[in-house]
Amino acid sequence: MFSGAQICLYPMTDDFVGVILGAIDALEPYRPSFRIETDDVSTLIVGPPEQLFPAMRDLFLAAANHGIHCVLAATVSRGCPGEPDDPICTPIGHVVHDKPLDDRIAAAIAQVVDAPKTGQIVAAQFSLYPLGGGHHMDEIYGCIEFLKKSGVFDRSKNFCTKLRGDAGAVFATLSEAFLRFGALNGHVAIDLKVSANSPSAV
Amino acid sequence: MFSGAQICLYPMTDDFVGVILGAIDALEPYRPSFRIETDDVSTLIVGPPEQLFPAMRDLFLAAANHGIHCVLAATVSRGCPGEPDDPICTPIGHVVHDKPLDDRIAAAIAQVVDAPKTGQIVAAQFSLYPLGGGHHMDEIYGCIEFLKKSGVFDRSKNFCTKLRGDAGAVFATLSEAFLRFGALNGHVAIDLKVSANSPSAV
Repeated sequence: MFSGAQICLYPMTDDFVGVILGAIDALEPYRPSFRIETDDVSTLIVGPPEQLFPAMRDLFLAAANHGIHCVLAATVSRGCPGEPDDPICTPIGHVVHDKPLDDRIAAAIAQVVDAPKTGQIVAAQFSLYPLGGGHHMDEIYGCIEFLKKSGVFDRSKNFCTKLRGDAGAVFATLSEAFLRFGALNGHVAIDLKVSANSPSAV
Repeated sequence: MFSGAQICLYPMTDDFVGVILGAIDALEPYRPSFRIETDDVSTLIVGPPEQLFPAMRDLFLAAANHGIHCVLAATVSRGCPGEPDDPICTPIGHVVHDKPLDDRIAAAIAQVVDAPKTGQIVAAQFSLYPLGGGHHMDEIYGCIEFLKKSGVFDRSKNFCTKLRGDAGAVFATLSEAFLRFGALNGHVAIDLKVSANSPSAV
């Protein structure tokens, strides 16, 4: 299954080039399993779906740990039918869809509880789009139930859901929502923003 | 039909707060017809679908005209079934769906040709998601045909399409893609980034 993301990093500082170039080093451990391409608008990462959110978390933390206000915006996708299937995208880990919904919700919550603590509080806002056929509304409602029990649910907003908490738990929650719900081979896309160190955060 | 956007503005400068607060004045002409709410992650605008992209254009240009690198990221939606229908969202203008696809492509191109020139070159990257049932693939292919003839088509990328050109033509192209294709009352969402003054733009 083809999976990947177009990632943008926005450090709100005069030295945004330096912050971005410094943060990109955080992707080094992922390079062996990812294809990575950059232009003036975004960086494409294509690789195993279960490593997408850990890679984005590490990139974002490397920028945010300067204490400056910065945002990561990403378009994340799995199962896009217009994309060539790629062996490097095959999931290799713990994610299985052959369990009942309640079991998957419990497993997703367990992953979030076990997520590493980073010490960086973030706000995340995202929309999850199940595209094409084959997605049951049960899966979407199951995902919403998981989000509300994730421990980092902030609130529902128009067009999106907002999370807030430690970056470890927030990125783990996003990853579980992306991997564990919706049709196994279905097309799922996420429109994501993650914000740290905002002067207007409450 | 409920329509609106969650808008984020990212000026890559130490004075990002000043740039954002200054740019928000550009939304004043739209306030009578919009509901506007802001938190630490985004600003919600709800109003007539045909005014969404002009409002975003004016906001973005007010920030970009400082010459600094800045990005507008938006989650744009029309026809979302989970949202309350709102009279202020009723389209009031020129957009009609009761024409054959070829006529609508020609009309969309004419709108882009007539778009005001702004003198600001921008790159835009977006994904258009037709959600739920009722969208014919003919509409999507028609939209792609329009984009390729818009005069600002840059290239297809993984998960998205990239435009480049004067901000007037680029925002007009995005607006036409959003308004004129897909089912009339269908749910359409756009994940959008627009970038100006990037030091790595080619």
